[in-house]
Amino acid sequence: MSADKPPVTARQILERCDVLAAESSSDTGIERVYLSPEHAAVNRLAADWMYEAGLSTWMDAAGNQRGRFEGRQPGLPALLLGSHLDTVPNAGRYDGILGVLLAIAVVDRLRADEVKLPFAVEVLAFGDEEGTRFGTALLGSRAVAGTWDPAWWDLHDKDGVTLREAFVEFGLDPDSVGDAASRSGDVIGYLEAHIEQGPYLEEADRSLAVVSSIAGARRFALTLTGEAGHAGGVPFHRRHDALAGASEVVLAVERLARTAGAIATVGRLQAFPGGVNVIAGRVEFSLDLRAETDILRDDVWQAIQDVIAEVCQRRGLICAIDETHNAPAVVAAPALKSVIADGIRATGDLSPMTLFSKAGHDAMAIADLTAWAMLFVRNGRGGISHHPDETVTVEDVAIALDAFEAAVLALAETYSHPTA
Amino acid sequence: MSADKPPVTARQILERCDVLAAESSSDTGIERVYLSPEHAAVNRLAADWMYEAGLSTWMDAAGNQRGRFEGRQPGLPALLLGSHLDTVPNAGRYDGILGVLLAIAVVDRLRADEVKLPFAVEVLAFGDEEGTRFGTALLGSRAVAGTWDPAWWDLHDKDGVTLREAFVEFGLDPDSVGDAASRSGDVIGYLEAHIEQGPYLEEADRSLAVVSSIAGARRFALTLTGEAGHAGGVPFHRRHDALAGASEVVLAVERLARTAGAIATVGRLQAFPGGVNVIAGRVEFSLDLRAETDILRDDVWQAIQDVIAEVCQRRGLICAIDETHNAPAVVAAPALKSVIADGIRATGDLSPMTLFSKAGHDAMAIADLTAWAMLFVRNGRGGISHHPDETVTVEDVAIALDAFEAAVLALAETYSHPTA
Repeated sequence: MSADKPPVTARQILERCDVLAAESSSDTGIERVYLSPEHAAVNRLAADWMYEAGLSTWMDAAGNQRGRFEGRQPGLPALLLGSHLDTVPNAGRYDGILGVLLAIAVVDRLRADEVKLPFAVEVLAFGDEEGTRFGTALLGSRAVAGTWDPAWWDLHDKDGVTLREAFVEFGLDPDSVGDAASRSGDVIGYLEAHIEQGPYLEEADRSLAVVSSIAGARRFALTLTGEAGHAGGVPFHRRHDALAGASEVVLAVERLARTAGAIATVGRLQAFPGGVNVIAGRVEFSLDLRAETDILRDDVWQAIQDVIAEVCQRRGLICAIDETHNAPAVVAAPALKSVIADGIRATGDLSPMTLFSKAGHDAMAIADLTAWAMLFVRNGRGGISHHPDETVTVEDVAIALDAFEAAVLALAETYSHPTA
Repeated sequence: MSADKPPVTARQILERCDVLAAESSSDTGIERVYLSPEHAAVNRLAADWMYEAGLSTWMDAAGNQRGRFEGRQPGLPALLLGSHLDTVPNAGRYDGILGVLLAIAVVDRLRADEVKLPFAVEVLAFGDEEGTRFGTALLGSRAVAGTWDPAWWDLHDKDGVTLREAFVEFGLDPDSVGDAASRSGDVIGYLEAHIEQGPYLEEADRSLAVVSSIAGARRFALTLTGEAGHAGGVPFHRRHDALAGASEVVLAVERLARTAGAIATVGRLQAFPGGVNVIAGRVEFSLDLRAETDILRDDVWQAIQDVIAEVCQRRGLICAIDETHNAPAVVAAPALKSVIADGIRATGDLSPMTLFSKAGHDAMAIADLTAWAMLFVRNGRGGISHHPDETVTVEDVAIALDAFEAAVLALAETYSHPTA
């Protein structure tokens, strides 16, 4: 841990991604879920790399791997840098992981350069962001944010193992999960680097972007009810065809969201009774709706509802709407967003691109604890993610590392501790 | 069987419909399938009523109940009058049945009036038109038409009973089914009365219509394939959303068929993989297409295919089309259509309405044996059929009986037997 040892390079970061990818419960792809043997294995690897970067390390009471790099004096409030090490099934090797390794690498540079910051830096490798095992996402970051819900103890995985049992099997004490929570007075903010999981950076031919907000999704289960009838016997002017009505709604969803710059998807749809020669009397379908702001998203939803009402009126249908999910958008802190933008500018990109995140991230949970901002890193092939084809270039990782370090240094420039 | 006995009235015909409705395999509705105990029961009832009307009766080698009323001399070629006594599940009490009872009642009037026609009249009560039990329709009428397919012997019902076994259980000899076939030289034509199973007569405030043709349906199984992807991650301009594409096709089917005066229905549709937050990568759906003529129907299908090709091109989708059914339209014989129209005019309706049948009928099968025409009788409540709410009025049945009898007499007026 001498300052003489050169800090890790972008190429080494990608090699570490490969090392982590080997820790999988599947022979045919990457799958690594919360509180699994693979989780324990990557925590040990991350702890080793944290240690080499000069951090003191520990696994917290929720299974998150953490490390601390003191500032000018011990015990200063900490800037949090982090992301997650768990994966979806058949995952790529960069989603979450790259952010953890960039955070460690930034501290490694501070170590090598013997930089003493006016705050501590804490690196967090969250154990659960994806929610793959227990169906509920962000368990690791929610423990850190102090928003753990005791109702989760009864969540169970596909083998019937409860979250409480999984804690015990992993060597954790469920009754101590509160110890994983950071106190807001002990932290000054949270920065997260993450692959974009979208095509916008690739299309703009840029490496990095500032994240303005994380879209909150609303999800609905809709049922359109008309009247089943014989395909031969009922002429068009007497039909109440639920599928023709639903088709109008699907196209309106696409048109209205696209025009407004929101994202909306009808991914599930089925017609009933489903006979080849029977007019559809009922259609059940889903709607997933996201936008940069809740206001925009809710405006689009209102416009969709107006179309549904008009279609129902014209076709003699009834629509039942059940809202199954509603997460508000979370907005990055302007001061920390500026710091990320400063970091990107330090790499030569003088007018950093801003994107909003359509996918959820640990920052959504940490937003309950402290201010946050995020750095997006281009991932190629159209931004494909949650897929083995997920990719980043070593050049982009190098630029991201420079920008992420520069952001931390920029924050140090402007930071004055209230009690300093 | 004296000529003194008054012939059955319209009200008695409706009472007979009620008597037949009681012969059901279901306690909660009407269900009467081919070669069942209920089939045997209604054959006996029909045979009794045929006998009272002056017909000699027999059950043929396919289980159809038949009766013959000789003309001026024994052994003349016969005019066939008929329909079916079997039902769909949860059926009404008039579909098919009313046509059989009207045919018997027409002969009963000939008996009472001591009319001697220049042809014999044969009444046919077909045992299977709906295909409810063995999945293949028109078994009774195909036996009479001489188009029985030996491959059908292996068809089986939901209990695994084959058609061959059902024949034996019913007391029939499978090897003799050919004996049910009439010879074309022995018949002069086929007339069938049937409820409309549609709303056009009700909307036009008329009791009866001439049937111009029976629409032949084409059915297709279609699969649109695009690309699944994350609802958050993939922006609209990079999507290949199979469900949005299918929705365009559903609406085009409705628009093109409606404009052309054809009937088309997408009754079955499902999106895959079916995740709330996953863009649909594949949609499977059905298409049922009918029109008065095959040319019109096939023109509409071509126009639909053109839309599918354009949608696939624009959205980057692939469409696979499998034709699962193709029955040609059958057209009524002009001379017999005129006779039906004459019959309707005899009731005071001087400009009879013409309709094409969107549903299949025994006449489709008998068309292979001889010329045919049909008389449609108004059924109320929007033409609801294949449903317990199926209904006809006693007034309409009285008018239909007058028209059907008048049609037979009109044919006798113009008929000259080739060898007479």
